[in-house]
Amino acid sequence: MPITPEQQAEIDAARAQAQPTLRATAPGLEQHLYKAHQVLDHGFVRVIDYMGDDAAICQAARVSYGKGTKAVSNDKGLIRYLMRHWHSTPFEMCEIKLHVKLPVFVARQWIRHRTANVNEYSARYSILDREFYIPAPDHINAQSVVNNQGRGELLEGEEAARVLDILKADSNRAYDHYEQMISDDGQKGLARELARMNLPTNIYTQWYWKVDLHNLFHFLRLRADAHAQYEIRVYADVICKLVADWVPLAYEAFEDYRMGGVQFSGKGIDVVRRMLKGEKVTQEDSGMSAGEWRELMNAIS
Amino acid sequence: MPITPEQQAEIDAARAQAQPTLRATAPGLEQHLYKAHQVLDHGFVRVIDYMGDDAAICQAARVSYGKGTKAVSNDKGLIRYLMRHWHSTPFEMCEIKLHVKLPVFVARQWIRHRTANVNEYSARYSILDREFYIPAPDHINAQSVVNNQGRGELLEGEEAARVLDILKADSNRAYDHYEQMISDDGQKGLARELARMNLPTNIYTQWYWKVDLHNLFHFLRLRADAHAQYEIRVYADVICKLVADWVPLAYEAFEDYRMGGVQFSGKGIDVVRRMLKGEKVTQEDSGMSAGEWRELMNAIS
Amino acid sequence: MPITPEQQAEIDAARAQAQPTLRATAPGLEQHLYKAHQVLDHGFVRVIDYMGDDAAICQAARVSYGKGTKAVSNDKGLIRYLMRHWHSTPFEMCEIKLHVKLPVFVARQWIRHRTANVNEYSARYSILDREFYIPAPDHINAQSVVNNQGRGELLEGEEAARVLDILKADSNRAYDHYEQMISDDGQKGLARELARMNLPTNIYTQWYWKVDLHNLFHFLRLRADAHAQYEIRVYADVICKLVADWVPLAYEAFEDYRMGGVQFSGKGIDVVRRMLKGEKVTQEDSGMSAGEWRELMNAIS
Amino acid sequence: MPITPEQQAEIDAARAQAQPTLRATAPGLEQHLYKAHQVLDHGFVRVIDYMGDDAAICQAARVSYGKGTKAVSNDKGLIRYLMRHWHSTPFEMCEIKLHVKLPVFVARQWIRHRTANVNEYSARYSILDREFYIPAPDHINAQSVVNNQGRGELLEGEEAARVLDILKADSNRAYDHYEQMISDDGQKGLARELARMNLPTNIYTQWYWKVDLHNLFHFLRLRADAHAQYEIRVYADVICKLVADWVPLAYEAFEDYRMGGVQFSGKGIDVVRRMLKGEKVTQEDSGMSAGEWRELMNAIS
Repeated sequence: MPITPEQQAEIDAARAQAQPTLRATAPGLEQHLYKAHQVLDHGFVRVIDYMGDDAAICQAARVSYGKGTKAVSNDKGLIRYLMRHWHSTPFEMCEIKLHVKLPVFVARQWIRHRTANVNEYSARYSILDREFYIPAPDHINAQSVVNNQGRGELLEGEEAARVLDILKADSNRAYDHYEQMISDDGQKGLARELARMNLPTNIYTQWYWKVDLHNLFHFLRLRADAHAQYEIRVYADVICKLVADWVPLAYEAFEDYRMGGVQFSGKGIDVVRRMLKGEKVTQEDSGMSAGEWRELMNAIS
Repeated sequence: MPITPEQQAEIDAARAQAQPTLRATAPGLEQHLYKAHQVLDHGFVRVIDYMGDDAAICQAARVSYGKGTKAVSNDKGLIRYLMRHWHSTPFEMCEIKLHVKLPVFVARQWIRHRTANVNEYSARYSILDREFYIPAPDHINAQSVVNNQGRGELLEGEEAARVLDILKADSNRAYDHYEQMISDDGQKGLARELARMNLPTNIYTQWYWKVDLHNLFHFLRLRADAHAQYEIRVYADVICKLVADWVPLAYEAFEDYRMGGVQFSGKGIDVVRRMLKGEKVTQEDSGMSAGEWRELMNAIS
Repeated sequence: MPITPEQQAEIDAARAQAQPTLRATAPGLEQHLYKAHQVLDHGFVRVIDYMGDDAAICQAARVSYGKGTKAVSNDKGLIRYLMRHWHSTPFEMCEIKLHVKLPVFVARQWIRHRTANVNEYSARYSILDREFYIPAPDHINAQSVVNNQGRGELLEGEEAARVLDILKADSNRAYDHYEQMISDDGQKGLARELARMNLPTNIYTQWYWKVDLHNLFHFLRLRADAHAQYEIRVYADVICKLVADWVPLAYEAFEDYRMGGVQFSGKGIDVVRRMLKGEKVTQEDSGMSAGEWRELMNAIS
Repeated sequence: MPITPEQQAEIDAARAQAQPTLRATAPGLEQHLYKAHQVLDHGFVRVIDYMGDDAAICQAARVSYGKGTKAVSNDKGLIRYLMRHWHSTPFEMCEIKLHVKLPVFVARQWIRHRTANVNEYSARYSILDREFYIPAPDHINAQSVVNNQGRGELLEGEEAARVLDILKADSNRAYDHYEQMISDDGQKGLARELARMNLPTNIYTQWYWKVDLHNLFHFLRLRADAHAQYEIRVYADVICKLVADWVPLAYEAFEDYRMGGVQFSGKGIDVVRRMLKGEKVTQEDSGMSAGEWRELMNAIS
């Protein structure tokens, strides 16, 4: 269970204190505030705060004086227009702050998205908890044979059991040793900033992560994508649902133009145009490589 | 007057709609929301939205689960510690969104602060208003004779009158011509994206500007400083007051460590140490240039 | 002429001093170094420095030890793969520094691209030159009747002449007054930081602008686009040619995937798929708005 | 040894290929190019490329046409002035690209500096080497008793031996299991993206890291500081020496104003002023907390 009773009590207390505000509020997101949405075995995503809503995107795009009194139908059209034409700055006017608990190897991928604010739990200052990500049996996969940076079919039987045994045993032994080294019982006790390096990267860490909606969409496009590693994708999937409840119009446009959208190269769109005119086009006379051709055929069929 | 009755009505309407929220609220800033704080002759600063408060800074620094239940006295000490030791990330966890109306030449200085989000009123899309910054008589200064990028004593009498006449006449003529060129009455009418280039940079523009507290402090340190140009400093001064009402503990630490603080070089601190030991130190044996020495003497006297 | 004889002499001197270096060099860009490529009537783009070449992109993608010994054909495939799959970080490993002279209203659009380094000529510190952008007769257009932020057909005859007269006369008068106000001949002389505000935004400024290749591509995609304002597009066009000489493989991939590429929404690609199966699709049963449908039909025909 | 003979051969080949360039060159840094400067037991820092030199900082500050023909003495004064007054943009005009091999727990601290470009070796794509950081005996310290996030006295005797044994044994066992899990000999073989999570954070990774001089100085100020963790400080120390050879004037100013400089709060400078006037000041009548007072006394004695 990722949340202790004490932590749950703090969350409940925070949810009990509604205050009046003149700011834009997003009722769809208020219902999620502070709650822990479980991800993987010990992880979670919690919304801590947010700024703005769908109307705020339009308000900024129009540099208007009021809260945005235009009809929702106009807002929807404007948001779709902004998304379609890559007008990113109005989406930057919304901001969200999340508390995320996640394995270190996932955190290392996540942090590559630099345009965000982060405060991570410090293992120099504090002692980490004994919480490690151990994959569920239906997520222990073999190396992909077609994609150098992906996973293929599921491991089964003895091999799967062996992997799980190793991960569990090594995690626990590393943590036992971590505790032994930092203990000051009968010895000085190793500095925490050194002892932590014995811990494997499936240990959980946590951070506060704050990002604007434009950069969050960029993160989600890459990390909720089918090519993303499963262990980060499940976080992105949870965040997608939260965003859909926060800014439903913007999220719908994002889904249509980014997640569901397809980018064609100049060569690719040329092939499509020829095909639409009834021409029979092959890879050979497309000017495309085998990989590009395969991706194009997947996209249009 | 910078605000029309219609705009004021929109502002009043926005201020009439309090909603319950579970988020952190800053009562000191709620009272300012949407209101136009006048700056210069036609400019203003309006707070449109904000995220976080003093407690949110501590909450992020501690990566805590609740809203921050520690005593205010602890929060104050922690915030001062963070400020003193340049731990900037917790301050990034607060965010503010402003609507600012400002002369174009001020906007050009302002925009150099890149770590912020901006949506500016588009003079390609819309027609600018006839509003120009004309300095008040007590802010028409001569070029400084000691500082190449500053102003010196006040202009007076005929010279001051001549300057004001020029600024007013040129602004109005440029605007008349702008209107004539874009008019489609009896002619095609020049494109707005071209006609705007005839307008001088004392014309007012406006934008939505969103920034985190750390980067806002950096902006304020440079722009509320005595060396900043007066016309941007008055905006910074207004924002300082808003921030003091928003995050009083963080603002107090900022005032003490940044605005009121002094940075000594290694050579400078060496001079101070020698003086404190009773030694008589001169510029010659300080190893400092005349300019550095003068700045040091100013700082310690 | 944008360059004075003294400036040209400085440029010639800089071009005369070849030095040996162990760094990656791009012969195609060395030939352009320091030279002023004229843009508009008084503007220019000059390459001041650069870091990296096509091989450096691959070297970073592979985190390799040597300069990149793989065959050029492999580098080309890798670069196309990186571009196609939005792997942006290897392109960030190339950097270019430009000296640009440009009208202020163009500079104001340009600076919205925040992920770059800028040092602009200071009109607080220095006196601006009497150089204003006056459009050539074939670039004075009417406001577009279909696009709120674009220009339409050419102005002709008396209207065109009137516009040019206004722009020239207002520019010169503003500059005369600027000189009169800052003069200390028989008067104190207005501070430069104030006097500059009388100048219209077709005056030229200049800056050093440094950017990595990924962010430069983003800039070029938006500013070399047909929808960009002509006066910034001509700068982007010149930079495109410089980049093609600098990193020919990366530029070719950029042209194919970004400039020549097309982004379809989920709804759009669904229409294409149905059409390719021989189905007759209309806007009504596409689920798309009139604007989206028109853009889609343009893209595929 | 951090470098294999094959890698050394690649480095030697790169160093053998001097090319003529018209760009600014820094002879002091050319001598370091590509060479591996060893850090810790298996790590290194290699300079891969650079842009600019001391003159380039001045050239950008002056927005000049030539390479910078002013006397070196003028450049020195200008650079000191820019550093003293926090004019950061001219320093951003220099850029350096490093290849760094470092333990994962160091990489996790390093990456918090977001304004930089990074390409890291991918453990999804490739197999990591069996290289772990094992501290030298004179760097195994106990937890500090005064500083929650630091280390104190050295561990000795049996305790030190026990720690080293644990770190070595756990690293090797984890790597053995990593190899066993990914092996496809008689089994499918676990995906690399999963197997890597069994590895502790003292394993080495490597990346290309590119940063401008201003942001590098910020990194060095924090990481070459006495309060930084030893394992990242040794990297910062090596980079300091490289920067001193690259831009000697800028580095000297950085040392004097940043590394050797001291920041006083408003309260602190008030105390100094009173002391300089001969007043006896105590913590009680300073208005400062015990911690602030202690830091102040350290700074001035």
